[in-house]
Amino acid sequence: MAHAIDFADVEAARARIEAHVHRTPVLRSRTLDAWARGERQTSCELYFKCENLQRIGAFKIRGAMNAVLALSEEQARLGVVTHSSGNHAQALALAARERGIPCHVVMPTTAPSSKRAAVTGYGATIYDCEPSVSARAAGAQRVCSETGAHFIAPFDSPWVMAGQGTCAWELLEQAPTLEAIITPVGGGGLLSGCSVAAKHISRRIRMFGAEPLGADDTARSKAAGRRLGNDRVDTIADGLLTNVGELTWPIIDELVEAVFTVTDEQIVAAMRVVWERMKVVIEPSAAVPVAAVLSEEFRALGLQRVGVVLSGGNVDLTNLPFS
Amino acid sequence: MAHAIDFADVEAARARIEAHVHRTPVLRSRTLDAWARGERQTSCELYFKCENLQRIGAFKIRGAMNAVLALSEEQARLGVVTHSSGNHAQALALAARERGIPCHVVMPTTAPSSKRAAVTGYGATIYDCEPSVSARAAGAQRVCSETGAHFIAPFDSPWVMAGQGTCAWELLEQAPTLEAIITPVGGGGLLSGCSVAAKHISRRIRMFGAEPLGADDTARSKAAGRRLGNDRVDTIADGLLTNVGELTWPIIDELVEAVFTVTDEQIVAAMRVVWERMKVVIEPSAAVPVAAVLSEEFRALGLQRVGVVLSGGNVDLTNLPFS
Repeated sequence: MAHAIDFADVEAARARIEAHVHRTPVLRSRTLDAWARGERQTSCELYFKCENLQRIGAFKIRGAMNAVLALSEEQARLGVVTHSSGNHAQALALAARERGIPCHVVMPTTAPSSKRAAVTGYGATIYDCEPSVSARAAGAQRVCSETGAHFIAPFDSPWVMAGQGTCAWELLEQAPTLEAIITPVGGGGLLSGCSVAAKHISRRIRMFGAEPLGADDTARSKAAGRRLGNDRVDTIADGLLTNVGELTWPIIDELVEAVFTVTDEQIVAAMRVVWERMKVVIEPSAAVPVAAVLSEEFRALGLQRVGVVLSGGNVDLTNLPFS
Repeated sequence: MAHAIDFADVEAARARIEAHVHRTPVLRSRTLDAWARGERQTSCELYFKCENLQRIGAFKIRGAMNAVLALSEEQARLGVVTHSSGNHAQALALAARERGIPCHVVMPTTAPSSKRAAVTGYGATIYDCEPSVSARAAGAQRVCSETGAHFIAPFDSPWVMAGQGTCAWELLEQAPTLEAIITPVGGGGLLSGCSVAAKHISRRIRMFGAEPLGADDTARSKAAGRRLGNDRVDTIADGLLTNVGELTWPIIDELVEAVFTVTDEQIVAAMRVVWERMKVVIEPSAAVPVAAVLSEEFRALGLQRVGVVLSGGNVDLTNLPFS
């Protein structure tokens, strides 16, 4: 079966969004290299793609911007809608503002006020709903009917996936000798887009995902060879709670070698190491692949040059997990 | 009177240390630009020189590395000594390790265990002393006599000042159109070194310092036209407690246009903005010039392109000032 996107979609996305997103820097850390190497014979160089320094503080602006800019004039005029309480909502709000069109966000009443403020700060309109998956979907459906606005899914959208893929392309320009790339997996938009881009640029590159043990549907799906969901989720990595998508899964199934799982304890320890040693603010979801590359299991692969996507840096500074 | 250093010293420093320190990135932020502009007519672009991403997490490695590498073989053999509980101690310990010579650090018994661990982690030996200026100086003197090690002052040393000056030189290569540069001032090593470098590269560049109101000796010295000290200090910016130095002051007196003072409340607010919006970890001392450029007084200068040195990022994540 043909995948939802191919490299031409990533190329088109890049041309569309390049003037609107940052080419984020790639950081290195001798300390983390040494820890990733551990006791093994060969060295390990980690290349951290800092999407936490991206606009809105996360890679999500890439996909949202591509989706918004890909709309025709007629489609765009009526605006865009999504349901999200996270980075995708902020990203869509900013993308819509830059195109000068309305943005509607359906958000559970339980969403923290800081996230509501961020979305309204970009000029979007918030619609309250009950905190359930079905209420969110129904709310978005209603806003679509009432306004004619276009629904932009947070990950299971070819435009969004292609936009996220530009991240791996940039990373491979900045660090052309990478043997592997690892990204977090929630819905799989980032991992699928990056896999399509990276595998096109270098057939030999090895792609990996990293997932919290408390929302390990993609790892279990890889093991089962078919898409599974989470019965319940329990992790500090609040950006990775969703199930892998219908469109993203076939790409991950085919192009991704393995999905590593890590505990919340490993996630917090990795997050702390990045803050203390690399001096950049990352959110728990972004610490998931860092925790993975510091694990024995990953070390055993013997990889010497690994790209790690630090996916975002949006945290509440008054509620940090360090003790 | 001739100054303690001139541009040739900065040039020599750069050649010595270039392979041992990072060329730190310069970050921008649309949000901070907008806030720095405020209500005025003209735009304001801020260029943040990220010395928090420097080795040991602060610019101090530049000066310490230059001082250690400038020693003759004979001098170096016996090692180096300093008294400090802060970034200079870590910097000297790392520089000494890279040259393969002993490093002795006299530290008050009250220094936090994290700072002691950082210094011993780089292989230095710690000597306890009472927490007073005189006990620290006496301790360092004793270690010098006993070991023959060379004393490396934290700021009032031509080698150290010249090393810190390389920071402004790099910044002006990365952002050649700057109209002004602002740095924090404690002992004045960074500000004096940067002023010598920047004024040589561009005579028209305007140099500014920023100081906590609770340790405002340099601002008062500028007002009085002579070097004054602090009777007592009270500020969260723990890297800026010392009085301006004998060697650094004449340079600051001549080349620096003004030293802005900010309250601890302004410092914490600026620190928070940088963490939340720029996603980089800075220590309170590094937030001092950020607070200054966001003040009405600084805005009134009408500057349109300002370099801001983010001096360091070493903080205790379990004891943050955000609430």
